[in-house]
Amino acid sequence: MRPAEFDLIARIRARARSSKEAQRSDVLLGIGDDAALLEMPAGKQLVVAMDTLNAGVHFPEATAPADIGWKVLAVNLSDLAAMGAEPAWCTLSLSLPAADTCFVDEFLDGFLELAAQYDVALVGGDTTRGPLSVCVTVHGWVEPGQALRRSGARVDDDLWVSGTLGDAAGALAQWQSGVGNDAGLRMRLDRPSPRIALGRALRGTAHACIDVSDGLLADLGHMCTASGLGGLVDVDALPASAPLRATFGVEQRRALQAAGGDDYELCFSAAPGARDAVLAAGTKAGVQVTRIGVATSGTGLAAGDAHGAAWSAPMSGWVHFG
Amino acid sequence: MRPAEFDLIARIRARARSSKEAQRSDVLLGIGDDAALLEMPAGKQLVVAMDTLNAGVHFPEATAPADIGWKVLAVNLSDLAAMGAEPAWCTLSLSLPAADTCFVDEFLDGFLELAAQYDVALVGGDTTRGPLSVCVTVHGWVEPGQALRRSGARVDDDLWVSGTLGDAAGALAQWQSGVGNDAGLRMRLDRPSPRIALGRALRGTAHACIDVSDGLLADLGHMCTASGLGGLVDVDALPASAPLRATFGVEQRRALQAAGGDDYELCFSAAPGARDAVLAAGTKAGVQVTRIGVATSGTGLAAGDAHGAAWSAPMSGWVHFG
Repeated sequence: MRPAEFDLIARIRARARSSKEAQRSDVLLGIGDDAALLEMPAGKQLVVAMDTLNAGVHFPEATAPADIGWKVLAVNLSDLAAMGAEPAWCTLSLSLPAADTCFVDEFLDGFLELAAQYDVALVGGDTTRGPLSVCVTVHGWVEPGQALRRSGARVDDDLWVSGTLGDAAGALAQWQSGVGNDAGLRMRLDRPSPRIALGRALRGTAHACIDVSDGLLADLGHMCTASGLGGLVDVDALPASAPLRATFGVEQRRALQAAGGDDYELCFSAAPGARDAVLAAGTKAGVQVTRIGVATSGTGLAAGDAHGAAWSAPMSGWVHFG
Repeated sequence: MRPAEFDLIARIRARARSSKEAQRSDVLLGIGDDAALLEMPAGKQLVVAMDTLNAGVHFPEATAPADIGWKVLAVNLSDLAAMGAEPAWCTLSLSLPAADTCFVDEFLDGFLELAAQYDVALVGGDTTRGPLSVCVTVHGWVEPGQALRRSGARVDDDLWVSGTLGDAAGALAQWQSGVGNDAGLRMRLDRPSPRIALGRALRGTAHACIDVSDGLLADLGHMCTASGLGGLVDVDALPASAPLRATFGVEQRRALQAAGGDDYELCFSAAPGARDAVLAAGTKAGVQVTRIGVATSGTGLAAGDAHGAAWSAPMSGWVHFG
């Protein structure tokens, strides 16, 4: 560790300490010692998620540092949202090709802006020299027995999704094809909104939940597999934003909605008798919720349109690996 | 995320579940959901550390995968040791250039071997495509008010260090110069022993503690700075292993001991009246402890030999960055 690394850590520490959200009384010791020291509230269960974003794999190399900072925290908070957890603290490992203070400052602008929205304190981590890569671990808690899991869906449950699908994948497709980006879609790619409030509101109502990071059908498939059942999805019901409808033809739009990645919406199941409760949870959280299908006995997902026609889409989800 | 990544996660999950140490009753939900769900014991404080190792920066590219697995967990556990914490759980983010199942299997051999020694459960994380990089977050706990910190040293405290210094840096120097490695030194580079038992035994006795990862003088300097005082180090007192003495001349050996990196020993301060207690803690933990100096008023470190001669060594510590 050269002095440059200590300078970066001191910079991050100063920013983390001066941010209002870091004034949590449960942070007994934050950045600056060998480890963070934290006070768990009595009677809660700890929820921990960890996700890494690598340059050129999870975001284009040209992504603005502030957007990288926002996104790496958002994708982690999205995992807590899917558990119905309340976020509290995070640690950050930042790997940079050089000790670039401008990059770090801009990265923290985005990271700490989102952290402030959810009252998340940055309490530790490290900086290293290496190819650009950012890894975050988030910590939160949930009331005993209240965590949402992937494995609780039941046959005949309604299948639901929050927000709209395909926007981020649409923005990426625009970016990669060199055409100008629609600003609304691009915002959804660069600055996803973790559905923390919705996850909290769904405790006790949703039977199973997962966040949609790799594409709806891929992630819904994981939820159904974990629950030991199958699913039937109405592709015509998949929620689409106005800019997505305006920008893409119906076939491409459907593919983006069903199999695009980086949505960071919640996909969940609930009993048919709980429809009013689900809608009320969406209203409470300020997020649209849409019924997109039904859980079935058996295995695997089937997708069809309103005319009953079977529909085949790329099912493999978002490509990160291989 | 392509199928290859799911395969890797399934592989890691199966290994983590079948390992005996993972049978902790406080892991309510491990690998396989959006986040891990963990049960904190009542009345403890949570301790969290996160460290990343990048290929070519923190370990030579040719390092055996099992040694990388051991080391990335060891350097994290070393941070918990420096806090006097008891380890419990960890998460792992593994970035690989390709979905190499042989690498993952061998990596887990080393990682889970060390995890078993300390009863640490691997409860989550992710795998991504990218340059070889491994990031771990470890979680443990400590009794309220009992955590060791960097900031508690007092003027006239004895300064102590565990084990021997310079072995890992000596092994790296041998490796880089192309001469054959002494097996004992090489083991210290590849398979450091986190001093968990010593850290636990020093609670209530040590006033301040830090782990030596960047070189003794660099890390002791951090401890003294955090404590608002200085230090005087007797370089002749620095503990050296038999193979280090046999392999290097006195000047090079001293430089390796004072400024080499990757020792993962504990450096700590305690009152002169606590010498018997410190020695007893070392005996209890099965680790040699050596008095190497004294905390002083003022700032900065001074190093000298037994003849009172001032001694100048590379003070900047281990080079990771820039």
